[in-house]
Amino acid sequence: MNSILRNDLLLRALRREPTARRPVWLMRQAGRYLPEYRATRGRAGSFMALCTNPELACEVTLQPIDRFGFDAAILFSDILTIPHAMNLGLEFDTGEGPKFGRPVRDAADIDRLPIPDPGRELRYVIDAVAMIRRELRGRVPLIGFAGSPWTVATYMVEGGGSKTFGQIKRMLYGAPRDLHRLLDVLARATILYLNAQIAAGAQAVMLFDTWGGVLTPAQYKEFSLRYMALILDGLTRHADGRVVPRIVFTKGGGAWLASTAAIGCDAVGVDWTTDLATARDLVADRVALQGNLDPSALLAPPEILRAETLRVLESFGRGPGHVFNLGHGITPEVDPERVSLLVETVRNFVPAPEP
Amino acid sequence: MNSILRNDLLLRALRREPTARRPVWLMRQAGRYLPEYRATRGRAGSFMALCTNPELACEVTLQPIDRFGFDAAILFSDILTIPHAMNLGLEFDTGEGPKFGRPVRDAADIDRLPIPDPGRELRYVIDAVAMIRRELRGRVPLIGFAGSPWTVATYMVEGGGSKTFGQIKRMLYGAPRDLHRLLDVLARATILYLNAQIAAGAQAVMLFDTWGGVLTPAQYKEFSLRYMALILDGLTRHADGRVVPRIVFTKGGGAWLASTAAIGCDAVGVDWTTDLATARDLVADRVALQGNLDPSALLAPPEILRAETLRVLESFGRGPGHVFNLGHGITPEVDPERVSLLVETVRNFVPAPEP
Repeated sequence: MNSILRNDLLLRALRREPTARRPVWLMRQAGRYLPEYRATRGRAGSFMALCTNPELACEVTLQPIDRFGFDAAILFSDILTIPHAMNLGLEFDTGEGPKFGRPVRDAADIDRLPIPDPGRELRYVIDAVAMIRRELRGRVPLIGFAGSPWTVATYMVEGGGSKTFGQIKRMLYGAPRDLHRLLDVLARATILYLNAQIAAGAQAVMLFDTWGGVLTPAQYKEFSLRYMALILDGLTRHADGRVVPRIVFTKGGGAWLASTAAIGCDAVGVDWTTDLATARDLVADRVALQGNLDPSALLAPPEILRAETLRVLESFGRGPGHVFNLGHGITPEVDPERVSLLVETVRNFVPAPEP
Repeated sequence: MNSILRNDLLLRALRREPTARRPVWLMRQAGRYLPEYRATRGRAGSFMALCTNPELACEVTLQPIDRFGFDAAILFSDILTIPHAMNLGLEFDTGEGPKFGRPVRDAADIDRLPIPDPGRELRYVIDAVAMIRRELRGRVPLIGFAGSPWTVATYMVEGGGSKTFGQIKRMLYGAPRDLHRLLDVLARATILYLNAQIAAGAQAVMLFDTWGGVLTPAQYKEFSLRYMALILDGLTRHADGRVVPRIVFTKGGGAWLASTAAIGCDAVGVDWTTDLATARDLVADRVALQGNLDPSALLAPPEILRAETLRVLESFGRGPGHVFNLGHGITPEVDPERVSLLVETVRNFVPAPEP
């Protein structure tokens, strides 16, 4: 199965090893801003039909690699595949975001949750990973991913997206033991899921904690970070004792980067509200950093986008350990030409000489 | 007009003078969680009808003072009164939030913006301030307020609420001079507006920067903080050289509290994602702090709400300069009994004796 990896910039940067240049990939790089993605999505019929079809998921995963030459592919999938496999009636209404027909509201709902077998209910994801890995033929590494238990739980308990997170906060304050049980089930399901992705060929993994930032500092540690640490702890070690590089990203978690960095990950994602120089101080160079261009900078005129991209590259400073990315996912209205410019700017970047 | 102020806890705490106990009020304390508010709102017919009717605005401002004995009243109004007075076709669709029929998209739109005369187009607000001040009869101080120019501009440019702020970010990156002109117009309009509120009787003022947290650190300083500083600078000084106490609140701005504190305000608001102990270190006790209970804690069982309230009180520590509040507005589903419990907990709080 495994071709020799010809571009290992990402893996080296995640391990803070020297690289000839900074690797670059973008969150949601396979997405609606690409006409070829929209065409495949149209053939699939719906977002979930696209996610659950390994051939089509493989196709859209490779599209941005073919077009832009990113330094990493990321599995095309969704953070809600696990609750989808738990039979909660997930639907994606057009323009409305995800909705669960059977949200999780109490202890009895939690008791009923099965832990999906990645080889069965999530087989479509694992097949997609294997197929993408094969089709990549060693061009770039493949990143597998999952949502953080806290973030996935917000959708399961709220029944969809939320502004105030009233339902899950009610559970957090009123029935914290139930919430801990839910998060524990999700953490265990996620360990199996990510290990199956690794076994099928994922060469790095990332945890997306999109909603960790709505918690207080103490709650972040107790209800989000703790379960991400559990997952990292449960990842398969290779025969040589090594685990694939692990990235953890808490959106809105800039103030907590030191805690996030301490849970045994190789890299932390940084959103655009924290400068990389500040982030680097906070994590004291113990982990690599991934980020952090404002996704809206892709709506800027070319010369401004270029300047903003350089600003991010320079703010990291010297030395290894920076994976260029956005601070959040790319948005549908972005012109693909802007993405080309961004990639070219990162590729050609040469840090200023030592003073 | 001016009765003697019988409860000056808020004003003393904002100036970091010693107080017998911590003052408490809640953002959006006159709101939909109160049955008496819903009744008045029903009589008004619509949200804007309520805002623009001084008698009714006065009535709902006083309701939570009568019911809970808060230590401050805050003018019942909206941060979008200024753009409303600029004739942008503001409407509040039920459950949809604000919408502008004529959003601001380019230089020509900005050129057309009038600076509203608070004595004319915003007369209803100024009349409400005077009426509330009279009706309060010195029970507690009255806080006037406005939105920050950046936050108000997001609604004007996006045409309503937004998740990604694509339109205004496009302007920020692509036409920053236009955006600066828009922010400058808003800052000048806000100075007139707040000075009129102060002249009519507002005893403290607050700037709500609800969306400052979607900016990068450099953009926050350039596009939000700078214009809030301009406004504070333009506020009327009394004959004794004193200005009314000024509170600045940037939601999601926890990492930038030191910068916010430095613009000449008396207090900064803190959302629940930063501990007050951390916030106090960041501002080095140069300003008072207002906050910062998670609004969702009001959905918790009584004993948990009490514990969370005490945790916030204790996290500030010893000494003057804490105004108890939520980290954001109270939500409609809150049981008013919980608010009574919160107020009682703050009133009865006695800090632990010196060690």
